[in-house]
Amino acid sequence: MKELREETIKVERIFTGKILTLDVETVKLLDGQIGTREVIHHPGAVAILPVDSTGEIFMVRQYRKALEQVLLEIPAGKLEPGEDPLECAKRELAEEIGKKAEKWTLLVSVWSAPGFADEKLYIYLAEGLSECFMAPDEDEFLQVEKYSVEKLQSLIRSGEVQDTKTVLALLAAGKISPLV
Amino acid sequence: MKELREETIKVERIFTGKILTLDVETVKLLDGQIGTREVIHHPGAVAILPVDSTGEIFMVRQYRKALEQVLLEIPAGKLEPGEDPLECAKRELAEEIGKKAEKWTLLVSVWSAPGFADEKLYIYLAEGLSECFMAPDEDEFLQVEKYSVEKLQSLIRSGEVQDTKTVLALLAAGKISPLV
Repeated sequence: MKELREETIKVERIFTGKILTLDVETVKLLDGQIGTREVIHHPGAVAILPVDSTGEIFMVRQYRKALEQVLLEIPAGKLEPGEDPLECAKRELAEEIGKKAEKWTLLVSVWSAPGFADEKLYIYLAEGLSECFMAPDEDEFLQVEKYSVEKLQSLIRSGEVQDTKTVLALLAAGKISPLV
Repeated sequence: MKELREETIKVERIFTGKILTLDVETVKLLDGQIGTREVIHHPGAVAILPVDSTGEIFMVRQYRKALEQVLLEIPAGKLEPGEDPLECAKRELAEEIGKKAEKWTLLVSVWSAPGFADEKLYIYLAEGLSECFMAPDEDEFLQVEKYSVEKLQSLIRSGEVQDTKTVLALLAAGKISPLV
């Protein structure tokens, strides 16, 4: 196999924020030319598909500043430094919808946007839900709602649900049918 | 329904690159406190699931600088300014694997990483493939490979394929089974 790796010549740190870090990397391309790559570093995240005893799904409605719009999504959150993804998923489920789960299944772990960011996303199925109080994150404001899978399938088909992790989780868990 | 919108107080443009733009936005949170949001602007992208007459899938193997690793993915690419997503998908299919398609179906359009970026991703199914030469992008170097859906299902289960758009496209098109 041809060597596809790009050699790094220089890394310029442009920004270090609360969540994101931005580097511009000067690289030697595979044809020997010099190019640049803009790279976002992200701590990684989890998403949870919480299914109740009747088969309904807990969702959160939340303002996404990057899109300037409210999205309907499954619960999710960023990893704290050194945090185990499953522990993070348990924490986020408690913080966002006030539940704990008896049964946790890792559906898939994926790179969210490998063209420009190193965010790894771990998606879990959470079953056997019960109440569990935990204070929400201080800068997070969301509404908890509950949906049947039939309703979610129709919201995805109509384009009212357009969040990648939500569509992926529902398909990966076999909760909704393929979209063709 | 409670108003979930966060009022923007100030937008600071941190970086304008070839592909990404980074803003730090000062916002009034829903409890009246002041917070900041780190927002990446991205032109949007397309991904294509190209299925040949035997049911096999064309994939590309490509170095992803953000991850410092080679990923196996379906063909994909960024929108040019003002470009129609379907035209972009046709261009990328030609540039990356040298094919055109008779039949195009939009599987789903989704926000890739709404927590920090405004990238919208349009995922198409491409069928009825035939040869079509087009020069590749000058800073893109990739290897074209072809896989059965059974092999891709096993590569996803083993974690060797971890690209979100690839897993989502295969599930959305009903080419692979749920992952539970």
